[in-house]
Amino acid sequence: MTLTPAKMPFSRIAIIGLGLIGSSLARAIKAADPSCEIIGFDGDAEVRTRAAALNLANVITTTAADAVQGADLVMLCTPVRSFAELAQDIMAALMPGAVISDVGSVKAYVLETLQAHLPPTVHIIPAHPVAGTEKSGPDAGFATLFKNRWCILTPPENTDATALEKTTQFWQALGANVESMEAKHHDLVLAVTSHIPHLIAYTIVGTASDLEGVTKSEVIKYSAGGFRDFTRIAASDPTMWRDVFLTNKDAVLEVLQRLSEDISLLQRAIRWGEGDTLFELFTRTRDIRRSIIDAGQDTANEDFGRPHEA
Amino acid sequence: MTLTPAKMPFSRIAIIGLGLIGSSLARAIKAADPSCEIIGFDGDAEVRTRAAALNLANVITTTAADAVQGADLVMLCTPVRSFAELAQDIMAALMPGAVISDVGSVKAYVLETLQAHLPPTVHIIPAHPVAGTEKSGPDAGFATLFKNRWCILTPPENTDATALEKTTQFWQALGANVESMEAKHHDLVLAVTSHIPHLIAYTIVGTASDLEGVTKSEVIKYSAGGFRDFTRIAASDPTMWRDVFLTNKDAVLEVLQRLSEDISLLQRAIRWGEGDTLFELFTRTRDIRRSIIDAGQDTANEDFGRPHEA
Repeated sequence: MTLTPAKMPFSRIAIIGLGLIGSSLARAIKAADPSCEIIGFDGDAEVRTRAAALNLANVITTTAADAVQGADLVMLCTPVRSFAELAQDIMAALMPGAVISDVGSVKAYVLETLQAHLPPTVHIIPAHPVAGTEKSGPDAGFATLFKNRWCILTPPENTDATALEKTTQFWQALGANVESMEAKHHDLVLAVTSHIPHLIAYTIVGTASDLEGVTKSEVIKYSAGGFRDFTRIAASDPTMWRDVFLTNKDAVLEVLQRLSEDISLLQRAIRWGEGDTLFELFTRTRDIRRSIIDAGQDTANEDFGRPHEA
Repeated sequence: MTLTPAKMPFSRIAIIGLGLIGSSLARAIKAADPSCEIIGFDGDAEVRTRAAALNLANVITTTAADAVQGADLVMLCTPVRSFAELAQDIMAALMPGAVISDVGSVKAYVLETLQAHLPPTVHIIPAHPVAGTEKSGPDAGFATLFKNRWCILTPPENTDATALEKTTQFWQALGANVESMEAKHHDLVLAVTSHIPHLIAYTIVGTASDLEGVTKSEVIKYSAGGFRDFTRIAASDPTMWRDVFLTNKDAVLEVLQRLSEDISLLQRAIRWGEGDTLFELFTRTRDIRRSIIDAGQDTANEDFGRPHEA
């Protein structure tokens, strides 16, 4: 692995939650700067044992409060609805001047929750690395997960400039590109590019498996026609995604409403045989695909990213 | 490439339409049995020139009627709504006893159209290889496209047993698994596993690019959150897909209606904060993913099939 040799601006990093993202963070930090001390915690004893076996951290603690002691960066990597309780667990143990950040897929809820529970002596800088896979758990992580991916920071107004700069450098040291925006705007953008695609993928997989007249075995056998691409997304972590939809309700419902209207339009076009409406949309969407490849956010490999010889 | 050495049961095969599927067929046939004669035709002069340069066929003709002369298998590989006119062009030139087949994604419409226009002296055996990529044109094809994929035959009642057996052998020689079913049933199954996923992917990409408050550049930048998987499917050939929706209207509208109801259910669950409904669905869909991988219809690679080092 080659990462740009950027200085790691934190010396003792607490990672709370050692699943796909938390364990990837641990691996990426170690790869970027082996001298950086990593303190890991997970609420699940089995995950703690596995994380120790994988040598993910210098120390694995049995409470979150122990993990954050003396840490100059605390990364919350658990499903976002655990943050209120977690904040209460760690608040007394946090080092003044520490940066408290996270990797959650929603940001307004996170910012609000952390601000409500944490002391003003720490710097709250929520973050969302737009990266992941459909796998979960400490074994699923890998050091290059964030490379060439975007990490969005949503610092509140009047955030300490040095703390923000250090958090930016941290993500850059892991290979990510960093952007800052308002938490509410983040939630709308991600509703479009991530939350709704996941919701629809989950739905369509559910619809297919419930349809009378088509057996489950048929759905599986003929999935190469397009369906399998949805199942990949729909295999993502259930707890994390439940929390996303419950905590980004407004933006998700807004985009879903727009999508429903657009589905109705196509439904009507199909019913009335309006081929031009279909053709116009199907042509337009090709350009967006091209732009995503040009922006380095997907590969141009054919066969839907799968090797030709299965 | 290693294909099982199966005997090619046809000696002179006409391929009408030399795009992704037609050119893949030409390559796969040549790889399976170099002695088999391939006659190619495409309505587009540029495609004919390119196909000749790629050496896709023994002969490239300038009319469809010329291509089918003396062929014991005729494969129609053009968008399905061209079949009525195509059938009229070739009907007089067809060799008695020849098998007329196709690769279209809808089958009841194809069967009906071909039966209405072709003489009773030929054997009509519609086929649908469930394989493809998001690319189009003669350069996009490759010999292993059908390997380990399913090919569905939808022979009409009272089909000649020998003709059916030869068509089955033909696809097996290209590495495909062959299944036969009623055309109408095929259309319902594929509406679920292919047509609706494509329609939704096209829609969601369109919705995202039209949404006020989110720029196109943001949609592209943060597409790794799930959206990019939809753009892959939504880059598929517009003409082919327009024809699919116009010719499989009933099944598509039926499944779309079911999907809309399921979306409404989730919409309601999100609005009222019913986390258990979401969690239950998100857990169930994981099992289907696992079954698809076990059935060899997708890779288990993580990171959504993309290499970790972009």
